[in-house]
Amino acid sequence: MFENDSLTTLDSLGEFGLIDRIKGSVKIYNQETITGIGDDGAVVDSGSLQTIISTDMLVEGVHFDMQYTPLKHLGYKAVVVNLSDIAAMNATPKQITVSLAISSKYTLEAIEELYTGINAACKNYQVDLVGGDTTTAPAGLTISITAIGYAPKEDIIYRNTAVINDLICVTGDLGAAYAGLMILDREKRIFMENNKVQPELEGYDYVLEKQLKPEPRLDILRALKEAGIKPTSMIDISDGLSSELIHLCKSSGTGCRIMTDKLPIAQETLNVADELSLPHFTLALNGGEDYELLFTVSQTDYNKLMKVSDLSVIGFITEATSGYQLVDSENNIAPLTAQGWSSFSK
Amino acid sequence: MFENDSLTTLDSLGEFGLIDRIKGSVKIYNQETITGIGDDGAVVDSGSLQTIISTDMLVEGVHFDMQYTPLKHLGYKAVVVNLSDIAAMNATPKQITVSLAISSKYTLEAIEELYTGINAACKNYQVDLVGGDTTTAPAGLTISITAIGYAPKEDIIYRNTAVINDLICVTGDLGAAYAGLMILDREKRIFMENNKVQPELEGYDYVLEKQLKPEPRLDILRALKEAGIKPTSMIDISDGLSSELIHLCKSSGTGCRIMTDKLPIAQETLNVADELSLPHFTLALNGGEDYELLFTVSQTDYNKLMKVSDLSVIGFITEATSGYQLVDSENNIAPLTAQGWSSFSK
Repeated sequence: MFENDSLTTLDSLGEFGLIDRIKGSVKIYNQETITGIGDDGAVVDSGSLQTIISTDMLVEGVHFDMQYTPLKHLGYKAVVVNLSDIAAMNATPKQITVSLAISSKYTLEAIEELYTGINAACKNYQVDLVGGDTTTAPAGLTISITAIGYAPKEDIIYRNTAVINDLICVTGDLGAAYAGLMILDREKRIFMENNKVQPELEGYDYVLEKQLKPEPRLDILRALKEAGIKPTSMIDISDGLSSELIHLCKSSGTGCRIMTDKLPIAQETLNVADELSLPHFTLALNGGEDYELLFTVSQTDYNKLMKVSDLSVIGFITEATSGYQLVDSENNIAPLTAQGWSSFSK
Repeated sequence: MFENDSLTTLDSLGEFGLIDRIKGSVKIYNQETITGIGDDGAVVDSGSLQTIISTDMLVEGVHFDMQYTPLKHLGYKAVVVNLSDIAAMNATPKQITVSLAISSKYTLEAIEELYTGINAACKNYQVDLVGGDTTTAPAGLTISITAIGYAPKEDIIYRNTAVINDLICVTGDLGAAYAGLMILDREKRIFMENNKVQPELEGYDYVLEKQLKPEPRLDILRALKEAGIKPTSMIDISDGLSSELIHLCKSSGTGCRIMTDKLPIAQETLNVADELSLPHFTLALNGGEDYELLFTVSQTDYNKLMKVSDLSVIGFITEATSGYQLVDSENNIAPLTAQGWSSFSK
C-alpha cells in the first residue's frame, strides 16, 4: 500500500525533518498556549483554572486495523478519544501532545495523512497541538496522545459522586460504533477470501461514521450548562455502557437500575444487528467506542433535563446492595454485567 | 525469561486488574495534585504559575534492549528523560502520566518491576503519577510518558534566547552514557556467541550507571538560582552535545565556538574509549543520553558561575555567520556537525 516509489521514506527525512513537517502543518487556537512544538516542553498559562490531563494509546492490530482504517480518520479518532475524556470531566480541552512510534512501512505521505486527521480534529475543537515525540518502531504504528483541559474547580465532574435516586442519562445512541466495526470486519473477511470482491459499504454510512469518526460530546456539555444543570457524576463511554456504568457505580458506592426499553439505539444499528443476528441489547450494552457521555442528574433537575435534546434517561441510581440491575419491558430483572472490551483478553 | 509458571499473565488479570495494582502502588507527593489515577482525567491546580508539558516515547528494540536493561532501571529512566525536559525549561516537574503498550511475553511481575522503577523516580523527585493508559500490543513494550511541570512565567528558559558572547556551559560530564551502552553491547555480543560466558561488567560501574540510571539535573537549577544566575537559554542533552548545541544555536539564530579541551569527560569514560578504540571527542560530542543540561549564561555572570560546582564552561555564542566551530588546543578550527542519534536512520 505504501510501497510507491514516488513516496518519501521517513528514513530519508530523519526525525527532525519529520518534526519540521509536522510543525509546519500545526496552527495554534488558544491564547493560553504560550509555546508549542520546538522546545523541551510546551508552555501553557492556566491562570486560575484547574488543569485536567488525560492520555490514551492506540496500537495497530489492537485498536485499529490498517486494512480498513483510513489514516486521516485514525488521526481524527485518536484525538477525539482524548477530548472525550476531557469532556467527561466537564472541562474544555485546549492542548494535546502526540507521540508516534512508526515502523518503516509508513512513508512521509502516510504520516502526513494521519496529521491531516489530527489537525482537522484540532481545528474542529479549537485544540492546540503543542508537542510530542516521533520515533521509529520495529513494527506497526502506536499513537499516544495526551490532552490537557481546563475548568473552574466548581465545574469539574468526577465519576465517584453519583447519589441514590439520581437519574442515569446517556447522550446520542449506543452500539452504532460496534455495528460499524462488525460491518468493516465482515467486508474484510470477504475481501481476504476473494480480493476481487469490492467491499459492500453502501447504506451503512451512519454506523461506519460512528466507528471511524466519533465526536466528543462537548455540545451536550454546553447544552446542559445553558439548561442550568450540573450532572452529579460523569464518564465517557469508550468500553461499552455496562462496563462504564459499573465503573461509575463502583466509584460512587452505589447500584443502578437500567430499563432496557429506554436504551437509545439507532434504526441503522438495529438493522445491522438483525443482519448479523446480534441481540440488540448486546450492541447497546457492550458495544464500546461510542464516545457518548454517561452521567447522572438529580431528580430535581428532571424538568430542565427535558429541554436538552439528544439525550435519554435510561434508569436511576440505587443503593449499592441492590446491585446492577437490568429491567425489561415485562419487568423481568437480570443482572447487568461488564462485558466491555478488555484489550488484554482479546 | 518470563515464562515461569508461578508468574501472573496480564491476560488473567485484565486491564482493570492491572490498573488497580498500579494504582495501589502509587503515592501522591504534591498538594497541587487534586486527583490522580481513576477518572477520565487527572486534575491539577496550577494556581498562578505557567504549566510545562513534555512527552517522550521509548520503544523496545529502538531505545532499549531487554537483554541488558533491567525493567526497574527502564522504568526509572523512562521517567527521568521526561523530568530532564521539564528541568531544561527551568521548571519543577510535579506530575506524570504513564502509558504502556505491552505484549503477552510480559507478566504482571515484570510490569510491577517496571513500576518499581517508575515509582522510585517519582519518589526521588517528588513527582505524582496521575494517570495513563495500559493496553496490549502485538509485540514488544512501548512506554509513553508525559510530564507536567510548573514555573513562574519569568523563570522559564527557552532554547531560542541565547545571545552573542554568552558563555556556553554543560553540567556533569559527557559521553559516559554512550560508553556504558558500548560496554553493554559488547558483553551482549560475547554472550550471544557463547552463553556460558558471564558478562564482564566489573569496573564499569560509573558508565553503566550513567547509561542505565541517568538523573535529571534539577540540583544544578537550584544551585544556579541560589547563585543568582538565570541562564539565557537552555536545552537538555538527550541526543549528544553537538546535536543539541546546533538546535539551540539554530533556534537562537546564532553560531557557537566550542573548545575541545574544555569538554568534561570522566576518566572512566576515557578508559572505555581507549579500550574500544573510540576517539574521546566522538563520545563527548555525539554520545547521547547523558541528560545533562546545556545552557548559556551572560558573561557578566562569570564570577557567580564560578561558585557553582559540577559545571563546565566549554565555549561561547558567536554570530550566526561564524557557523558552529570546534577549536582544539592548538587552535585548529573544525566545523561542529550534528551526529546525534537519529532514531529513523538506525
